[in-house]
Amino acid sequence: MTTPSGALAPRFTGIIPPVATPLNADGTVDHASLERLVEHLVSAGVHGLFALGSTGETAYLTDDERVAVVHTIASANAGRVPIIAGSIDLTSARILAGAQRLVAAGADAIVTTAAVYAINDATETADHFRRIAAGIDVPLYAYDVPVRVHSKLSADLLVALGAEGTIAGVKDSSGDDVGFRRLLAANAAAGNPLQVLTGHEVVVDAMLLAGADGAVPGLANVDAAGYVRLWDAAQAGDWATARREQERLNELFEIVFQTSGRSGDAAGVGAFKAAMVAQGLIERATMAYPLQALEGEAVERIRAIVANVGLAGVSA
Amino acid sequence: MTTPSGALAPRFTGIIPPVATPLNADGTVDHASLERLVEHLVSAGVHGLFALGSTGETAYLTDDERVAVVHTIASANAGRVPIIAGSIDLTSARILAGAQRLVAAGADAIVTTAAVYAINDATETADHFRRIAAGIDVPLYAYDVPVRVHSKLSADLLVALGAEGTIAGVKDSSGDDVGFRRLLAANAAAGNPLQVLTGHEVVVDAMLLAGADGAVPGLANVDAAGYVRLWDAAQAGDWATARREQERLNELFEIVFQTSGRSGDAAGVGAFKAAMVAQGLIERATMAYPLQALEGEAVERIRAIVANVGLAGVSA
Amino acid sequence: MTTPSGALAPRFTGIIPPVATPLNADGTVDHASLERLVEHLVSAGVHGLFALGSTGETAYLTDDERVAVVHTIASANAGRVPIIAGSIDLTSARILAGAQRLVAAGADAIVTTAAVYAINDATETADHFRRIAAGIDVPLYAYDVPVRVHSKLSADLLVALGAEGTIAGVKDSSGDDVGFRRLLAANAAAGNPLQVLTGHEVVVDAMLLAGADGAVPGLANVDAAGYVRLWDAAQAGDWATARREQERLNELFEIVFQTSGRSGDAAGVGAFKAAMVAQGLIERATMAYPLQALEGEAVERIRAIVANVGLAGVSA
Amino acid sequence: MTTPSGALAPRFTGIIPPVATPLNADGTVDHASLERLVEHLVSAGVHGLFALGSTGETAYLTDDERVAVVHTIASANAGRVPIIAGSIDLTSARILAGAQRLVAAGADAIVTTAAVYAINDATETADHFRRIAAGIDVPLYAYDVPVRVHSKLSADLLVALGAEGTIAGVKDSSGDDVGFRRLLAANAAAGNPLQVLTGHEVVVDAMLLAGADGAVPGLANVDAAGYVRLWDAAQAGDWATARREQERLNELFEIVFQTSGRSGDAAGVGAFKAAMVAQGLIERATMAYPLQALEGEAVERIRAIVANVGLAGVSA
Repeated sequence: MTTPSGALAPRFTGIIPPVATPLNADGTVDHASLERLVEHLVSAGVHGLFALGSTGETAYLTDDERVAVVHTIASANAGRVPIIAGSIDLTSARILAGAQRLVAAGADAIVTTAAVYAINDATETADHFRRIAAGIDVPLYAYDVPVRVHSKLSADLLVALGAEGTIAGVKDSSGDDVGFRRLLAANAAAGNPLQVLTGHEVVVDAMLLAGADGAVPGLANVDAAGYVRLWDAAQAGDWATARREQERLNELFEIVFQTSGRSGDAAGVGAFKAAMVAQGLIERATMAYPLQALEGEAVERIRAIVANVGLAGVSA
Repeated sequence: MTTPSGALAPRFTGIIPPVATPLNADGTVDHASLERLVEHLVSAGVHGLFALGSTGETAYLTDDERVAVVHTIASANAGRVPIIAGSIDLTSARILAGAQRLVAAGADAIVTTAAVYAINDATETADHFRRIAAGIDVPLYAYDVPVRVHSKLSADLLVALGAEGTIAGVKDSSGDDVGFRRLLAANAAAGNPLQVLTGHEVVVDAMLLAGADGAVPGLANVDAAGYVRLWDAAQAGDWATARREQERLNELFEIVFQTSGRSGDAAGVGAFKAAMVAQGLIERATMAYPLQALEGEAVERIRAIVANVGLAGVSA
Repeated sequence: MTTPSGALAPRFTGIIPPVATPLNADGTVDHASLERLVEHLVSAGVHGLFALGSTGETAYLTDDERVAVVHTIASANAGRVPIIAGSIDLTSARILAGAQRLVAAGADAIVTTAAVYAINDATETADHFRRIAAGIDVPLYAYDVPVRVHSKLSADLLVALGAEGTIAGVKDSSGDDVGFRRLLAANAAAGNPLQVLTGHEVVVDAMLLAGADGAVPGLANVDAAGYVRLWDAAQAGDWATARREQERLNELFEIVFQTSGRSGDAAGVGAFKAAMVAQGLIERATMAYPLQALEGEAVERIRAIVANVGLAGVSA
Repeated sequence: MTTPSGALAPRFTGIIPPVATPLNADGTVDHASLERLVEHLVSAGVHGLFALGSTGETAYLTDDERVAVVHTIASANAGRVPIIAGSIDLTSARILAGAQRLVAAGADAIVTTAAVYAINDATETADHFRRIAAGIDVPLYAYDVPVRVHSKLSADLLVALGAEGTIAGVKDSSGDDVGFRRLLAANAAAGNPLQVLTGHEVVVDAMLLAGADGAVPGLANVDAAGYVRLWDAAQAGDWATARREQERLNELFEIVFQTSGRSGDAAGVGAFKAAMVAQGLIERATMAYPLQALEGEAVERIRAIVANVGLAGVSA
């Protein structure tokens, strides 16, 4: 498979941050901060960029905003690493229309989920991915995130879709490590048609030991260099170092638990944005309507955690 | 509140079928069948039309298809009954953009759910409805359907949104009769700011006894006259007749259980469409991709059930 | 089927309160209060007694305590109304051993759930009920309470078990009114092998209209006479009166929503016991360890609600 | 803390198989096979024995059978490794009574879950564990198995119970690797009051890398030596070897996926027992009523998998 520009299809391995979407105070996209964030991530050595993931608040963006975000990421990246973009919508016809626009804007691959709101079975879900893949000329990845989609993609389905050439990989945010391990084994038994990525920040070392091809950690917006060091140690087979780096990152991940009584989206992305502001990576922690930025003591605790793990430029 | 044309805002009471969306063999909307279906429903005495509900396969339609569907329904209806249209998308900005187009196409009210895919709390969900309501000049209804949205709208939230004027009513497909009864009581205690409609076909008599203002039964696409008779009996306080009519309709509702191993969407809408084809109400039972129409023995059993309850023009 | 004493098997219809289990301050069963409660309920005209249900805190009682509770209820009842007792345990062998002791203590019928903790399928669940039924010489009822058992008993399974003579009835606390309506229809189509009872306090009028044989309302511990009036009105076909009585009871049911941040068991049974203490029906509101009785303002609000619906002897 | 015999309390680390319970054809416990199984496991080098876990079909055994099982395991073990026994029942008073009998029969520690069937909050769950711990003179472990208990024990609760001396460890079968990693971190931050064991067969290498103290793999009934080799490699920091052994065991674990349409309990324990019969470790694959032993082609496929991974004495 080749990219729109005729090059070989990209393979997504290593650390591929789901790029946050900085916003202006009025809720519009802050493209200047987004450019700076992309430069920061690529300079830190990440191996790819994941545009328009959950961390990117994709669900809250209009189609036009999504296109603009991919355009800015692609421009700032300037071809240094491959870009995969999420086309998130209810069903296949809608997802495909969005995906075609994202490819035109510079995405080297597309990632999407099974249908949401609709109530489909496995046969329908397979056909869903087939129609989307047939309508784009870049690789398609499946995103398995039951906490949002409320259904799980089975290892059997994913490997079958990989073997037939419909999908090129999987981003797994299922929280089901037993299922993930079975997916890795089934994929290996089938000749590895899939690139398999984990979306869970705190178990990257363990999932790389188990055979994952890479990770899409939202926390890499806050500490990309840490995840790159973890990846390098794992590649070298130095699992003790990988684990130490993971444990440092896990201390940092506690930022998402510093609020109480806030929604999942507000607590998670809100903490990442607060920590990015603390480091000067983006201008402000504004989130997409109706999410409200974190405030007060929660932000103080987040700053203290960020400082405590030694990230440059932050004092508690 | 007034409609776009300056008239008083419509109140949705009685039987308001969620209009099915007939499709051509190639998956495009069959507008001729849709016109005929609208004529059939209005002639049967229904009190309103619910465009673009789950029964209308809304989730599978593009924005342009949705607008065209509302336009056809409004034209065929010619102002005889009020029309409420579903704007179903992930989050508020996207839903609002869709809603504005549906109002322009002829919808007298809009209905939508809490955000899907996003993970929001009650405060964010309230703000979600507020932004949508503020952006349209027709009444907004809330649609509570946890089997699709995977969160439940609480009675407290709904009545508060009603009391402040954000929403004018609720379509309840929660399957939670205890919660529905508490909603009715809380609404009454607040002076009935909300029109409360049930979406469950088989308990309309009981929910009308409990105080519901009306029903949105998908099965009314198959037997609108039956639901109108049920409504009339309930209005007259003749609960024995209402129950007998309900039990006849419940025999008919068994059509949705005649398949096994099919998805929820395929089994439900598929059965309605098969029964509508049997009566000559629409041309074909095609469903939106990737749903496949029911076939074979299931269709035979559906025809037999339809004939058995005495619907005109069908022989088993 | 005959009872242990050789009489015809009892049929459970009408209002059958799940009798609360009054406790002493040290957590032991307060048999004197229990006797008084039974006398109060039977005098109010209830048609049966349900011992050792969830409202009776059965899950927290040892086997010996359970036997003693049934013995006291049977003594106080003195044969006036039939008694059904819950044998609640993990699996069939354990449930059967308990059931045999409860029958010996005076139960006229036994009710139990599918296995808990175990992960069984429908075939295994059918065999589960068969072994229990075969080991007792009184009727067996199935208790469908997914919020506790975490699986749902299907209408098909229940009617099949009824038709073969394994179970004599169902207590439905599934919160699934659509499923309940289908159960009533399937049971009727099979010649009514099952007595079908609803466990939901706030929809008794509607479920009786739909054809239920009776109700097991925990709230009847607080206002048995109200439920008897509701039953009498429904039997007379006076649905307007039934609904008015239901709405009065629903105002009373708000007592279970007067606490926040307490567990389901503490809030529900705790409210009933607080309201019973307010009326002098039991000595104290102690609940089984580790549940703590409600306190402070919540109790004041409960007393006010009880007074407000006109129950004798309580002033707010 | 000391054991009943006055020795120091045992620490459970390493490989601690949840011992299967062999049954005779009539469903009674096959104590001769159980003795042989214990001898086989201890000889293979396991570091402890977990009696009466889910793999041991505990939920289906009566209290007397449970006592007899622990007695046989303790006799056969003859003090070589520590024994932890599950006391599984609905609530604390019932669990405690059972636990005291199991300690008297030879258990060196007790493990139990939060209440089942009851609906408790975190405060009540903490009190639940406190009463049980106070009533036994051996260490108490918490068993976190949401698929059976339908609630999750939080890391905060577990570490607090550990720090105060109520529980000595945790068996985690939550399937939530992110939560498990946070538990390990919180435990380390608190000075490691808890021994933390994973119950998931297929990720033991990864969980040991993450810092787990040991594993309770049901599959160790089938290949104890394999898990001991995995443990030894991990202890030596040889993660490549640990991963290879894990992958071999994961091939073996596919035995539990060789049936379709059977319940979770039947498929899992049934596969283990079929594989144990294939190796001559137990006499027959009978499971506790109402579970039916696997049969036919499923058993053939299981034998082939067992042979394929090189277990002695089995030919496909």
